Amino acid sequence: MSGEKSLKIALLGCGTVGAQVARILREQREELATRAGANLELIGVAVRNIGAPRDVQLPPELLTTDAHGLIERADVVIELLGGLQPAGDYIAAALRRGASVVTGNKALIAAEGAALAELAEQNDAQLRYEAAVAGAIPILRPIADSLSGDQITKVMGIVNGTTNFILDAMDSTGAQFDDVLAQAQALGYAEADPTADVGGHDAAAKAAILASLAFHTNVSSDQVHTEGITEITAEDVSAAAAAGYVIKLLAIAQKSEAGISVRVYPALIKRSHPLASVHEAFNAVFVEAENAGDLMFYGAGAGGAPTASAVMGDVVAVARRVVSGGPLPASSQAQSATMLDFTQITTRYWIGLSVSDEPGVLARIADVFGSHEISIEAMNQQVSAEKSGAQLRILTHEASEAALQSTVAALQELDAVLEVQSVLRVEGN
Amino acid sequence: MSGEKSLKIALLGCGTVGAQVARILREQREELATRAGANLELIGVAVRNIGAPRDVQLPPELLTTDAHGLIERADVVIELLGGLQPAGDYIAAALRRGASVVTGNKALIAAEGAALAELAEQNDAQLRYEAAVAGAIPILRPIADSLSGDQITKVMGIVNGTTNFILDAMDSTGAQFDDVLAQAQALGYAEADPTADVGGHDAAAKAAILASLAFHTNVSSDQVHTEGITEITAEDVSAAAAAGYVIKLLAIAQKSEAGISVRVYPALIKRSHPLASVHEAFNAVFVEAENAGDLMFYGAGAGGAPTASAVMGDVVAVARRVVSGGPLPASSQAQSATMLDFTQITTRYWIGLSVSDEPGVLARIADVFGSHEISIEAMNQQVSAEKSGAQLRILTHEASEAALQSTVAALQELDAVLEVQSVLRVEGN
Repeated sequence: MSGEKSLKIALLGCGTVGAQVARILREQREELATRAGANLELIGVAVRNIGAPRDVQLPPELLTTDAHGLIERADVVIELLGGLQPAGDYIAAALRRGASVVTGNKALIAAEGAALAELAEQNDAQLRYEAAVAGAIPILRPIADSLSGDQITKVMGIVNGTTNFILDAMDSTGAQFDDVLAQAQALGYAEADPTADVGGHDAAAKAAILASLAFHTNVSSDQVHTEGITEITAEDVSAAAAAGYVIKLLAIAQKSEAGISVRVYPALIKRSHPLASVHEAFNAVFVEAENAGDLMFYGAGAGGAPTASAVMGDVVAVARRVVSGGPLPASSQAQSATMLDFTQITTRYWIGLSVSDEPGVLARIADVFGSHEISIEAMNQQVSAEKSGAQLRILTHEASEAALQSTVAALQELDAVLEVQSVLRVEGN
Repeated sequence: MSGEKSLKIALLGCGTVGAQVARILREQREELATRAGANLELIGVAVRNIGAPRDVQLPPELLTTDAHGLIERADVVIELLGGLQPAGDYIAAALRRGASVVTGNKALIAAEGAALAELAEQNDAQLRYEAAVAGAIPILRPIADSLSGDQITKVMGIVNGTTNFILDAMDSTGAQFDDVLAQAQALGYAEADPTADVGGHDAAAKAAILASLAFHTNVSSDQVHTEGITEITAEDVSAAAAAGYVIKLLAIAQKSEAGISVRVYPALIKRSHPLASVHEAFNAVFVEAENAGDLMFYGAGAGGAPTASAVMGDVVAVARRVVSGGPLPASSQAQSATMLDFTQITTRYWIGLSVSDEPGVLARIADVFGSHEISIEAMNQQVSAEKSGAQLRILTHEASEAALQSTVAALQELDAVLEVQSVLRVEGN
């Protein structure tokens, strides 16, 4: 079929992902027309510099630096510029005209997703952003649609490929963070300034989006407790491995009767957990739902073609509704929810201490945990040949972050404790 | 919200899954009304025996043996009887009335899905069946919707929990098939008559559904080449393990320029492949798409509450469209496609031979492969203390099934070959 209906598609940005979207729109015209119920006509590509080299061959007349002019003529706008501005202005302009928008802009959606969704609804336009979380993996639509008859209780995602590549390499080679980061930068898995990735900020934006959809509420990046992986040492990784665990940077959204907690931190998970077998730069999102039980969605989290696949899935969905009318995508994010303070979360902990190697130390340390009502699941002591004192690793049962922090403060007061070397959380069953 | 709109829901069947659907409809009224945009009012449950014990407490007046009478009054019919008849008649009756249908009936959809989809379209009704494949895992909607802007090239699914439980137990314990089957039956993971599961027929129905959606065409169960796991021995499993592989029953749908192949058989996959870490009765579907690359969807493949979760996701989607109108779910299954004969598929092979332990045997065997244009990737010989002769395991590069079958026939003619013990295929990279 190449129906008589035609939709005008404007593409904003022609970088790694944009070039692939342009290629697919042009190479797969017939197939896309069949699936969408209308021709998807690429009417223009807004770029900053017309003359810049690109990964796709485009007729020169498609390129423009006038994004607003292009948006004026479009039925569907695909925004792949990234960043808050001018992307936010462009999207708002498109929605105000009643044009639908597909974007992969996680930072913008995490910051202003609720306002933009409202603007879309007011103008009977659609706003879709599957590509914003976990690249090619269809995760937002399954959460919003397929699980809409269920209650999601927890989402745990490996949603940043750079940090997973680094942690996976540390796990398999025993190398230190700095060395692996340099290698990841050389291979193109990490940027020259890796802060957004290794600091957990990229994952925090995705955590906010996942939490908003999973719990039908609005969570923004700044409500996400965020820790990165820069403090993770080769010793942490090898000690975790010896105990049967692997360290992953997790974006966690959790709902309990008390409220919602959204957080990003490196955590230990058991080797047998499905998330443990996510290697290299792959992403995966693990979902726990009341009825469905445990689900996991796995795939490429970045890259031009994989991310373009997610964008095009959204474009087809948007086009189908533009052609046929019908309900807007579920936007039941209106429910208000109590956001828990980070000190209110409960999880398990894994604490690394350097202690003086003398009688009675273990009892005194165990006593500190007990007096803060944290019970210990396992304790492992190793006398180090290199360092003074002994190395102690303590795995706790579930406890509140507040209790943990008081415990750590009390441990630091003990003469027998030379140093609190690491405090990591333990997730998954 | 508990809007003024209300949809009348009829439930056919109140077994393991039906009881959970009834429970969720009654317990989650408010939530479901918010998500669906209408109250979902359970108006009746059709059962064969009103007095039978059930897993859910229902007001007696909801129960009826008059399924057709119930269907007459319904906006949405949930069919959870299973089997071809009378389920097929009920669904057809509902669709002819313009009522939408949600079903988990894989046998019926695999046999008559195309005709029922057409009937639905003619009557502007919806037909959804997410629960028919891989239980709780949202897989059909991602394939049909999220990947609609991509080209799926291959789907490999572990879609039968019973056989995965058996193969996983054989792998972890070294036990023989019959012993593990008996244990699975005792634990409730296998039925008293396990034929549908261990013979691959249940997986074949799911393979047909996956292929139809992935390739936008119509494939029925009888077009699926189907082999079960009853011939798999503990020796196969341990030899595969020694070579770094695990044996899984795979439902495979593959598209090449030559055509479409749909098949179910036990196959070796590398331990590092994401499907290899699917344990116990869990399901997973691995998808290869041109742009998205490799994706995997993992979760519970059966069970009352997990399957009910998938059913309810469909019910909410159906309700949303009944309330607001709009496009029917993508039903672009109209494309015709060439179905390849099983002899035309190409894959890798792993052949177990018992051979006489004398000079020149390996060369003669290698010669047979070469003369059929199959190249050998690896060959492993072990002299058995228990059995006469030597055990030979041969891993081939990619070859056609026709070439493989000629090779096996020629091997059986060789005096040096005492027995062709097993021929298994090798999948995944």
